[in-house]
Formats: sequence, C-alpha cells, structure tokens
Amino acid sequence: MTGIPQEQNDLAYDVFAKACPSRGTLEHVTGRWGGLTLGALHQGSLRFNELRRRVDGVSEKMLSQTLHALERDGLVHREAQPTNPPRVDYELTPLGRRVTERLLALIQCVEGSMDDVLASRAAYDAGQRS
Amino acid sequence: MTGIPQEQNDLAYDVFAKACPSRGTLEHVTGRWGGLTLGALHQGSLRFNELRRRVDGVSEKMLSQTLHALERDGLVHREAQPTNPPRVDYELTPLGRRVTERLLALIQCVEGSMDDVLASRAAYDAGQRS
Repeated sequence: MTGIPQEQNDLAYDVFAKACPSRGTLEHVTGRWGGLTLGALHQGSLRFNELRRRVDGVSEKMLSQTLHALERDGLVHREAQPTNPPRVDYELTPLGRRVTERLLALIQCVEGSMDDVLASRAAYDAGQRS
Repeated sequence: MTGIPQEQNDLAYDVFAKACPSRGTLEHVTGRWGGLTLGALHQGSLRFNELRRRVDGVSEKMLSQTLHALERDGLVHREAQPTNPPRVDYELTPLGRRVTERLLALIQCVEGSMDDVLASRAAYDAGQRS
C-alpha cells in the first residue's frame, strides 16, 4: 500500500521489541475478545447484538471497546445506517480480512490439536501429583 | 494422532463456545507472552535466560508461568540437563512447532501491515478530534 517493498516493511516492525507498535496491534488481534470478534466477522457483516451473541461470554462494554480498537487499527469498518432506530453494522476491511485469514488458520490448528493438548495436560498433572 | 478424522476433530472443539477448553489453549498461544515465547523458540532450543532476553520486557515470574502453561499444553518441552550448575533448555514439541508456524504467519502479516495500521490510527484520531 505504501510502496515500500514487503521485505523492507517486515524489517521495520518487530513484535519482539517492547516499544514496537506492532505488539499492540498483535494484542488487539489475538486478545481474548479481539480474535473471536474478527473470527465472527469473517463470515460477513454483523450488527452489534448479533456479534455479541456469536462471541459467547463477552460483555457489552468489552465488545464495544474491542470494536473501537479494531476500527482504529483499520481492521474493522463501522457503518451506521441512517434508519430509525439507527442500525450499526460491522464488517472486516480488506486488511482485516487478510489478518483474520491467518488468525483462523491458527484457531483451526489449535482446535484440531485439542485431543493432544488435553492428553498432555492429563499426563503433566499426573506427573505433578506423583 | 487420535485416529479421529480431522474434519470430525474440528467439530469437537469450538473457541467461540465459552466452556470449550480450546479457548484456554488459544489464550496460552496468543497471550502477550505466550506468543512471543513460542516465536522465540521457533529458531531452536533456548535456556531460560536466553529466552528472557529475546522476549523483551517479560519478567522472570511471567516467563516462568508462561512456560509452565505451554509445557502443560504439550507445546513446549523442558529438558533439565544433569550438569552442575543445573541447566534447563526449552524447545518446541512437534505440536508446538505446527501451532507456532501458524502463529508466525499471523505475526508476519501484522508486522507487514503496520504502515496501514498506523495510517488508519492517525485518520481515526483526527476524526475523533474534529
């Protein structure tokens, strides 16, 4: 988008560095509610209450804060419809879609690994007790 | 690993459901320190203090807690060498490696998008002020 080659771009930001702004964005994307919000919007635009039902367990306040952070980072687009009562739709931007595709690949990998994870936890806990 | 077909396996766990154990594992993987720890170990095994230097900003206590959670989930292997003084190495398990590869693809996507993210933040903040 900026005309900077991808390779040079990658070198400019480093999540391992404490002060790099990419660390904050990674946290918005992978935070408890940010990740689930992006994942839910991957299927298409949703209204606030639809989103809240889909992201099981999120409070109204936390969902609102999460959406603001994602909108500010340019990952989610907020569209207020001029209806009465007003209706607000949320959807992924093209950038949000690219990031969310990577996130969903990670989520699917974790979900698909849970039998092994639970077996490992049981073995670990048994070892701690003995 | 369990003989359950991948497709059926995916249906068994759902991070969108509040009570699903996959949500906890996703948080270990994507939490502030969990993600950076996995990313650092992707380059090879590291000792505790090497890891602490690489994950800029983490405290000794937080790194220790993070490693325990990742070890319990079967993503990281802890190997105590019988030397004097004792030496402890940490490395990714095969499962940890699979998960970390997805995580790094996400991190690289975020790092490569930061010019756009910062431009979006500036536009958002300017809009809030006007």
